[in-house]
Amino acid sequence: MTKKIQVNAAILIIGNEILSGRTQDTNTGSIALWLNSLGVKVQEVRVIPDIEEVIVKTVNEVRKKNTYVFTTGGIGPTHDDITAISIAKAFGLKYEINKEAFKILKDYYKEGEFNEGRQKMAWTPSNAKLILNPTSGAPGFIVKNVFCLPGVPSILKSMLGGLKNEISGGKPIISHTINLRTVESEIAKSLTSVQNKHKNVEIGSYPFFRGGKLGVSIVLRSEDQSEIDNCNSEITTFVSQKKIEIIKNN
Amino acid sequence: MTKKIQVNAAILIIGNEILSGRTQDTNTGSIALWLNSLGVKVQEVRVIPDIEEVIVKTVNEVRKKNTYVFTTGGIGPTHDDITAISIAKAFGLKYEINKEAFKILKDYYKEGEFNEGRQKMAWTPSNAKLILNPTSGAPGFIVKNVFCLPGVPSILKSMLGGLKNEISGGKPIISHTINLRTVESEIAKSLTSVQNKHKNVEIGSYPFFRGGKLGVSIVLRSEDQSEIDNCNSEITTFVSQKKIEIIKNN
Repeated sequence: MTKKIQVNAAILIIGNEILSGRTQDTNTGSIALWLNSLGVKVQEVRVIPDIEEVIVKTVNEVRKKNTYVFTTGGIGPTHDDITAISIAKAFGLKYEINKEAFKILKDYYKEGEFNEGRQKMAWTPSNAKLILNPTSGAPGFIVKNVFCLPGVPSILKSMLGGLKNEISGGKPIISHTINLRTVESEIAKSLTSVQNKHKNVEIGSYPFFRGGKLGVSIVLRSEDQSEIDNCNSEITTFVSQKKIEIIKNN
Repeated sequence: MTKKIQVNAAILIIGNEILSGRTQDTNTGSIALWLNSLGVKVQEVRVIPDIEEVIVKTVNEVRKKNTYVFTTGGIGPTHDDITAISIAKAFGLKYEINKEAFKILKDYYKEGEFNEGRQKMAWTPSNAKLILNPTSGAPGFIVKNVFCLPGVPSILKSMLGGLKNEISGGKPIISHTINLRTVESEIAKSLTSVQNKHKNVEIGSYPFFRGGKLGVSIVLRSEDQSEIDNCNSEITTFVSQKKIEIIKNN
């Protein structure tokens, strides 16, 4: 089977509330796990403020380096929601009422409730393709390889499912975890040898402290199951020689 | 009182485990909240992989744009811990055994336990200043305006306190939150007027859904308490005119 060229993505988390530490971002994890399952690897995440100039510059930088860009946040009705106008500027497009979005929102709200604030959510870069929102009406949108999603985690998650057909991924990235009752320094040298022999597998080592006990998670990631199997076998061999307890291997 | 020039910081989260969605970053929040209290504003966060070339390039980009840079992750004993060597390359410094770090680690471990893996944690860019680690021995380090901390959240937090004297911040950033029982579109227009009148206050609007009820948090951030008080007073005035319930104001 011919190996596909790696498909990459960047995630832009737009919002002062993440930078100030007030709000904990969880959208990175939701998007990354979903993209992994489609064979797309997230290669960078940036958290940036609600400043038009910064959004425009950052979008233009990352959209050229990545197959896909996902933005979260800044598409609501208030003054600090400036993602749509910034994306329009980044692509040199008009920022205007999207007729389809206008209709969706008009139908969503009761008579008299589709006020000026809500109408703002119908504005997108010209000819943007909409991302339907099964939870709260207001759609996201796509301009070329840039996908704009809301910041509210539950709404974002509900919108990802509908995007599957828009993404052409590579082979799904397989992840395998081995949890050991040891500390990193006991296995560092042996693990380095395994990594050096298997360049196509990304081997991560992560210490943890759970239930009063120390341990290390070794995470193997690759598009190739047989490569993962080989690494796993080499790791379990040295682990057994060192008489280290395997807590989990799956 | 003369206004100080704003003191900014960037945070670099180094680690494939965050990009893959396997691990949820919480270090951004810990560092950002701590920096706010010292009058330092985080203006960007980047999550990048354990790839030397990417770390070197990113560090060199952000250290020129920010007063301070904080990195997290990649300073442990395993093959994927490459922050120290990457920082050395970014600054054109040697990567070598730091005598002070070597002594700290040698004293920390029992006789015979200071093995090759652990000795790796004594390597830093030449002449790096150490950041003491009250939790687990292995120190972080400082090169010029770049502060390198570990990725394990509890250890990172334990090390921040000792860094206070290394940071020259501006005026602390004051944050004030008003929670309303409403939806964003009801207040969007009035809030825009308040923001337009008070350019020195960053006004954020964040919808929430808690205990089965919708609400909006308005967050006012500024170095100037009187500006925040003025905004707060204008907001409570329009909120009262609209007969919107104030859930919390503090």
